[in-house]
Parts: sequence; structure tokens; C-alpha cells
Amino acid sequence: MKTIPEPTQRRLIQLKQLLSQQTSEKITSKDLENLTGWSSSLIRRDISFLNYRKGVSNGYSVKELQQVICSCFKIESENTKIENCCIVGLGRLGTAILEDDFLGQNRFKIVAGFDSNVNRIEILKTSFPLYPLSHLSKVVSKMNIKFAVLTARDEEIQKIVRELVSAKISGIVNYSKEVLSVPSDIIVENISPIIALMNISASVVNKNKE
Amino acid sequence: MKTIPEPTQRRLIQLKQLLSQQTSEKITSKDLENLTGWSSSLIRRDISFLNYRKGVSNGYSVKELQQVICSCFKIESENTKIENCCIVGLGRLGTAILEDDFLGQNRFKIVAGFDSNVNRIEILKTSFPLYPLSHLSKVVSKMNIKFAVLTARDEEIQKIVRELVSAKISGIVNYSKEVLSVPSDIIVENISPIIALMNISASVVNKNKE
Repeated sequence: MKTIPEPTQRRLIQLKQLLSQQTSEKITSKDLENLTGWSSSLIRRDISFLNYRKGVSNGYSVKELQQVICSCFKIESENTKIENCCIVGLGRLGTAILEDDFLGQNRFKIVAGFDSNVNRIEILKTSFPLYPLSHLSKVVSKMNIKFAVLTARDEEIQKIVRELVSAKISGIVNYSKEVLSVPSDIIVENISPIIALMNISASVVNKNKE
Repeated sequence: MKTIPEPTQRRLIQLKQLLSQQTSEKITSKDLENLTGWSSSLIRRDISFLNYRKGVSNGYSVKELQQVICSCFKIESENTKIENCCIVGLGRLGTAILEDDFLGQNRFKIVAGFDSNVNRIEILKTSFPLYPLSHLSKVVSKMNIKFAVLTARDEEIQKIVRELVSAKISGIVNYSKEVLSVPSDIIVENISPIIALMNISASVVNKNKE
């Protein structure tokens, strides 16, 4: 299968999320256009990357399309294995995210939390064990944790990232505005609000050039 | 100037953020490779979209390159005007983000906050005025707010988005896992942790196909 361009990949992930919110059995690219704001031709082109041809004329099966996307990216299907994740930083942001039940019914599972504040670790009640930051790389290796959600303070970030890299992490969700120094085989998603605002602003400017 | 591909745009925004953290005067594409994990040839190609040719042989000026990126995307230069932003949803996540001083010294400024809980609005201390959710579209229009950071609960999201759209918002930073239904001229950045994890996981799969 050919490599899927990054913007297509991002839209397909969104599409999967959108399909999981639908109650109807069938959905057309025009319906999807109304729900997302993307043009129906763009949506059809994105879906064509999945080598999924059914439903182009009379609507896609909501369930089937969702499964095809999940299986293409190995997310959230019944046969895919659970991925162990950890959260690093349990201050206000970290605990707010946890309270949100943010992972829901997905294949990502938080199995450990870390914080530099030992008091905090003793007080917090979580469904998974908490460790001091100094145990990070050891626990990540031992528990085979592949993804980390990073909500620590800016000044701790680079040190934490070095530990995660040495423990062979696969991906990092970065809430801080620090840019992470990682080898090219580690995937980083930067989701700090300021980076998001700059991306939006840049997209507005870029769009006006079209 | 030609349109810049989305992945290049995202990397350039990251690069700008990274340059702002540097203390040296000059930086080479090889230095940037070490800091980001992206290959130096990819970095040089990204920078070539800026029509900026200086420093290819003996290193870029950190300050100048930063300015060129800012001016290309109209972010954060001294001459660009302040963009009014609002935050919608002031529960634990919203207040954690605010406490983080997340915007720092940027051209984005939070000028209003909204929540459906009127008690919360009365109790919270913020440097900007707070309003009940029912005033959203009126206040956004009146204050010329262009960007919204959305941290409300999932069940409130679609109604809020309709109000923001009717008030002519330009962009939305979406913390929820809901997919937003917006017209195509409104830019959305989805930064829920679960979407981020799915993007990372998909990138890992996609990369392995290369």
C-alpha cells in the first residue's frame, strides 16, 4: 500500500472519530462534507487511499468505513493489541486530562503516571500506579510503555524526553510549548494551545494565498 | 508566493518555536536536524518555501530565520496586530490551561471567557471578563474575537460551535474528541489527547510502509 500523505492521514483519523458519532447506517461524501467542511471530492480522494471502493455511488457503510480506517492505521479494532501509555506530569493540567476520561474505549491504556513531586504521588488517587520522575526510564522499559502524554512543566521537559528516548518510547503527545529533541523514528504530536493557534493563523494566511 | 504544504507549515511553526529557545547567533540545518529529528535536507527544503536563501552554506541567522517564518505566516512580529481570542469552558481543563500562562508573549490575547456554570463565572479570578455561555455569539461579534480555545464538555460542543460560526470566528482550537461541523473557511486544530495518540499511532504505521 502506498504511503498516505500526512494531511490525508489526519483527516481520515478525524473521519473515523466522526463516524463513531453517527447513528445512521449509510453516509455519503456529501453528508461528510456538511459535517466536516471538507469538500466531498477531497473526502472521496482521502478515502481512495484506503483501497476501499464500496459505496462511492450510493453512500458508505458507516460501520465498514470506520473499520477500514481503523485497520489501515491499526487503531481501535477488536484484534489490535492494547498499547501501554503513561502520563508524565500530574499537576493541574495532567489531572484535568485524567479526570476527563480522555481515552474512553480505545486501545490506548494509561498504565503508569509520573511526577517530580513525591507528595502529589502519595495523595493522588488513580486507577494505575504512580511513580517519582526518577523512575521514569526504568518503569517505561519494564512495562513496555510505547506512548507518553507529556504535561510536565517546561523546565523539566527536555530531561524527561531524554529519559523517554533512552527507554525506547514510540510517540509523545507534547502539551508544552517546548520543541522536543528526539530521533527521527519517534513521533511527536505537539498540542500546546499556542502551537495550535499559530498553526491556525498560518493556515488562514496560507489559505488566502490559494 | 506559492502555497506551503501543510506538513511543511507545521514543521516551520515548530522551527520558529525552537529558534526562539536558542541562545546562539547562527544555526545550521545539521544543528536543526539534531534538535528536531527531521533530516537536514527536509529542513532545508522546508526553509526554501520561505524564499529565504541566506545561510544555506554557513548557517542561518537564528534571529533572521525566526523573523522570516513569523512574517510569512503573520505570527508574532512587532508589526502584526493582536488577535483577540476567547476560552470557552472554564472547568478543570480550561482553568489549568489559563494557569499555565499558555499564550506568553505572543500576538494572541485572551479577551473573554465563557462557561455555562454561572457560579463558576462569579468565583473565578481572571485578567479578562467572563460571561455566561448564552452571551457567546453576541460577545464574540462585539469584541471582534477571531480565535476560540474550546475546553467545554463534549455534550455542549456542537451548540457552542454553531454560535461561534454564526459570530464569524476564524479558527477553533478543539480540546474535545468531538469532530466539529464547520464551514470550510473556518480552521480547526484538534488537540484532544486521544486524537493525538491516534495520529501518532497512524504515523508509526504509515512510516513502516515507506
